Amino acid sequence: MKKLGVAVVGVGFWGRNHVRVFSELSETELIGVCDVDSERAKNIAQEYDVEWYTDSTELLKHEEIEAVSICTWTTTHATEATRALKQGKHLFVEKPIASTVSQAREILDLAHREDRHLAVGFIERFNPGVRRVKDAIDQNRIGSVVSGTATRVSKWPERVGDVGVVKDAAIHDVDIIRYIFSDNPIAVYAKLGTLRHKRYEDYAQMMLTFQDGKTAFIEANWLTPYKIRRLVVTGSQGILSLDYITQEIKIDKAQQTRIPRHEWEEPLKLELQHFANSVLANKEPLVTGIDGLNALIICEAAVESAQKCEAIPLEQKLEK
Amino acid sequence: MKKLGVAVVGVGFWGRNHVRVFSELSETELIGVCDVDSERAKNIAQEYDVEWYTDSTELLKHEEIEAVSICTWTTTHATEATRALKQGKHLFVEKPIASTVSQAREILDLAHREDRHLAVGFIERFNPGVRRVKDAIDQNRIGSVVSGTATRVSKWPERVGDVGVVKDAAIHDVDIIRYIFSDNPIAVYAKLGTLRHKRYEDYAQMMLTFQDGKTAFIEANWLTPYKIRRLVVTGSQGILSLDYITQEIKIDKAQQTRIPRHEWEEPLKLELQHFANSVLANKEPLVTGIDGLNALIICEAAVESAQKCEAIPLEQKLEK
Amino acid sequence: MKKLGVAVVGVGFWGRNHVRVFSELSETELIGVCDVDSERAKNIAQEYDVEWYTDSTELLKHEEIEAVSICTWTTTHATEATRALKQGKHLFVEKPIASTVSQAREILDLAHREDRHLAVGFIERFNPGVRRVKDAIDQNRIGSVVSGTATRVSKWPERVGDVGVVKDAAIHDVDIIRYIFSDNPIAVYAKLGTLRHKRYEDYAQMMLTFQDGKTAFIEANWLTPYKIRRLVVTGSQGILSLDYITQEIKIDKAQQTRIPRHEWEEPLKLELQHFANSVLANKEPLVTGIDGLNALIICEAAVESAQKCEAIPLEQKLEK
Amino acid sequence: MKKLGVAVVGVGFWGRNHVRVFSELSETELIGVCDVDSERAKNIAQEYDVEWYTDSTELLKHEEIEAVSICTWTTTHATEATRALKQGKHLFVEKPIASTVSQAREILDLAHREDRHLAVGFIERFNPGVRRVKDAIDQNRIGSVVSGTATRVSKWPERVGDVGVVKDAAIHDVDIIRYIFSDNPIAVYAKLGTLRHKRYEDYAQMMLTFQDGKTAFIEANWLTPYKIRRLVVTGSQGILSLDYITQEIKIDKAQQTRIPRHEWEEPLKLELQHFANSVLANKEPLVTGIDGLNALIICEAAVESAQKCEAIPLEQKLEK
Repeated sequence: MKKLGVAVVGVGFWGRNHVRVFSELSETELIGVCDVDSERAKNIAQEYDVEWYTDSTELLKHEEIEAVSICTWTTTHATEATRALKQGKHLFVEKPIASTVSQAREILDLAHREDRHLAVGFIERFNPGVRRVKDAIDQNRIGSVVSGTATRVSKWPERVGDVGVVKDAAIHDVDIIRYIFSDNPIAVYAKLGTLRHKRYEDYAQMMLTFQDGKTAFIEANWLTPYKIRRLVVTGSQGILSLDYITQEIKIDKAQQTRIPRHEWEEPLKLELQHFANSVLANKEPLVTGIDGLNALIICEAAVESAQKCEAIPLEQKLEK
Repeated sequence: MKKLGVAVVGVGFWGRNHVRVFSELSETELIGVCDVDSERAKNIAQEYDVEWYTDSTELLKHEEIEAVSICTWTTTHATEATRALKQGKHLFVEKPIASTVSQAREILDLAHREDRHLAVGFIERFNPGVRRVKDAIDQNRIGSVVSGTATRVSKWPERVGDVGVVKDAAIHDVDIIRYIFSDNPIAVYAKLGTLRHKRYEDYAQMMLTFQDGKTAFIEANWLTPYKIRRLVVTGSQGILSLDYITQEIKIDKAQQTRIPRHEWEEPLKLELQHFANSVLANKEPLVTGIDGLNALIICEAAVESAQKCEAIPLEQKLEK
Repeated sequence: MKKLGVAVVGVGFWGRNHVRVFSELSETELIGVCDVDSERAKNIAQEYDVEWYTDSTELLKHEEIEAVSICTWTTTHATEATRALKQGKHLFVEKPIASTVSQAREILDLAHREDRHLAVGFIERFNPGVRRVKDAIDQNRIGSVVSGTATRVSKWPERVGDVGVVKDAAIHDVDIIRYIFSDNPIAVYAKLGTLRHKRYEDYAQMMLTFQDGKTAFIEANWLTPYKIRRLVVTGSQGILSLDYITQEIKIDKAQQTRIPRHEWEEPLKLELQHFANSVLANKEPLVTGIDGLNALIICEAAVESAQKCEAIPLEQKLEK
Repeated sequence: MKKLGVAVVGVGFWGRNHVRVFSELSETELIGVCDVDSERAKNIAQEYDVEWYTDSTELLKHEEIEAVSICTWTTTHATEATRALKQGKHLFVEKPIASTVSQAREILDLAHREDRHLAVGFIERFNPGVRRVKDAIDQNRIGSVVSGTATRVSKWPERVGDVGVVKDAAIHDVDIIRYIFSDNPIAVYAKLGTLRHKRYEDYAQMMLTFQDGKTAFIEANWLTPYKIRRLVVTGSQGILSLDYITQEIKIDKAQQTRIPRHEWEEPLKLELQHFANSVLANKEPLVTGIDGLNALIICEAAVESAQKCEAIPLEQKLEK
């Protein structure tokens, strides 16, 4: 079977996981890595026996590289994505797709013009627990969905660079809520603040409302010294709870509580495998550029809401 | 020790618990009961060996009755409260204090003019778990408070009469959030709807924001076939969880999870005992008329928010 | 419907619960109570508006009394049981049926000769959770049963009188294991001791073995400052766990964990109702004198085992 | 720092974990591997860039190898251990130390004569949760210890070779109980059987008694389709529970339940690191040959107990 030639741009904390997974997958062949830190690029390259670069322009000249995953800091996503697309590479961009909505739109347009696949790294979509939650909802196992409540709190992550907790953490749950509700919100109301850290907000609370009456609460922070990543979906016939970390779901219904047992699976592996298969089969990936763009629009509206102390309507802003 | 002479007006599902507790307390002497259903009034009165009435005007003539608790349907709270205050009785009114804010204001004014004690039945204030949550927050055990999330869901309660889930259920958590945050919210954003029942909303999601950055999410419904009453408070140093039903609290911190062990105590007993002691000692009760009024104002603003799809500012509306 | 006329002998801590339940049941009419403490007998009798005695011989003369429940200290069970049976009364005896096996045999013989119903107060048989465990086993829901592990620990119970933790506490689980295994053990090996209290053993560990390979571990003590009453049954296809206190069962299988939801029911009410119905319908009660005798034999063998540091064979000792 | 030169004999399911860990540790240098399956030996050796052998006699000639870990099937432990010791190598032997007590004694004697270090692979000793349980007991945090209950159940492990569930699984808990009780048992009573598998027992229940009144229950099987590895220690002041898998401990006391939070650590890494450090520093390892021997003696006595349906005294059998 033909393997997809891939490269990773940005091999810091998270990028090196991409490198490891691409090297393990049978669907991909890792060709090279790139990092502005030459020592880092070199070390990783040697460990995995691939080529290394400090300048992505050079890397992208490599013809065997068909797809690139971008794991650099958010502020450089737009530049790196543009470069890669112009060189004809398919693209996997870590979330958030870009620093700003306008940058994100440019990436989408370019991908469209160049006819390249564009996937965005909302890894929780590939959390097997999320798929089970989605399936349970779609199969009407908890009746009509009334609300979703997502909690994503932890202490300050050393790795974080150039975005706050909204675009780094809450954005995951914004995407997941859109996904499991199969709908876009019509408005967002949010409060966010900076309790301990100077530059970016370190806590955020958001409420998303939907046309048909559904609501989502999203809480995210980098304060709480105990890591929780949880999703609770309330329906007219039951309650679904997911622990994103253990991937365990719990279904509370009138007659019983049921906790299915499953092996833990690595979401990143499932995510990059899916990306490779999408490109190889020329199919649209599960998480599209539109998904990346809409989640970012909602996050920017949340920031605006917090500044204005108003709910921000979303219908005119979001892409269909 | 002098006992407080008390009577209960409305001895349906909930009023009969007042009767039982007043008859058990050493601080009170139950004198009489009143109910529009004469059979019900008579049966209860015989069981507890007290006088019975179908007309509260008659009951209130009884001079040994110093305080009255009103457990009738919400729409009659204003009439019954007015009657009792004019007869010089101290007053305990079940929540919500009245059907409308204007009625509530009239009750407060009258209580003030008549110089009578007025307490409102926010029973969760007397849940020992709430006191422990409040103490833990005030003692800075979870650092700076960031948010509170309250969940109060259950199947349709047969008993419910003449208000929806906002004023019947969510109002408890509105009050508890005000209490544990020691502050009034500055705005409310809400979504509510009617999924299964015709007349009143049967689900509601509310987000309350506070001046200093704190936020509360409140979810209440009469849909979910599994009863949950839970409060989670996120702080910069830890997370507090309370199960209102078992009264158990859990404190998650960086180093450990701690679950103190306490005997379950009946909140209603603690509540009515506190009321009796407040009247006997001529001290202001823990839950004042102002508390009852402000919670109702917030609930009405939540309804308005849902209708307008806007966040409703509260500062001008609430009493200090 | 004809009601069964009943009386309670011994109205201390536990006997007063019998009084309350007999007064609540529609199947029984409480006629009188008896206690050597005249103040106690009088107070209870007045509360429930029945006759009171300090001498059971006098009580038993009352012809309307058809059945008697004996809640006195264990050392007087034999005397009280003999008296009641000789007066032609049906008998409910609290566990343990008697202080010694020989006394127990005499009670059984007398009940047989007098043709009276004899039930023994193994209240856990009427714990709805036990019935669910028994049903699940009998319906082969956890495959072949391999073992049962029972834990019954708590701090020193003030009420306890004249037997140690083996005959007071562990005896419940001895009976439950016989019941859910539908078999008698062939041997017992036990260790017991006195860690904090002078007169009676306050901790006991027992292992029961069965012909077909099943085993039971029973742990009981009056030391642990945290009350646990739990039963775990391991089978070839799953594990059943019961919390006797909450009555909740949990079924762990390969594919899932399932926790059925049920309303809590008062075991004493179910137990005395069953007793009354058995007598009224002239049917053998669920817990017979043989059950009371065999559990006591096993407990005495456990004491013997601990003294000799040997496993004690049971087949020759137990009644079929 | 000087590294310890090591080799692994037997690189099947478990041995390859030794290989990986030895290659990761800074204290050891992996020199070679040996397996009767040449393909397996070669593959592993290539992955880790070390030498490979199919005959341990050849491997042992390698002078840089100072210590050998033996991960072959149990029946060959004696032969391999003898070979290695005679070549002057320090020895780490996976549990059980040997198939029979007499073989185990020969290994101990030889190690003594050759003055070589001998450690036995009771990996649970290096489970950080066990250390916390041991510390809590030693610091008197649960008062006087009354009993320990260990549960180790799972479905049939494909890997298992040539011993039954007693010597493969229960032996871990036999060792842990000896360790946390700081004492040897005086007797064992056991029941074991074969429910699903032909050759070896697939379930075992054991009760160990101790001079001072302590008791342990050990349950092990290869039947239950849900993996549980748990230890509960009951004391006069509290209860300690350990989940061996998550390494989480829980301490239930009168006033509270406390669950300390710790990062998961790989027991095998801690175990082999400790072994290397012991050899390098010429100190006795935590788990000695005596520990390996005594656990095996107790397991053989358990088998004897089940055959005879008698408790087997241990004091004369065990090494001090």
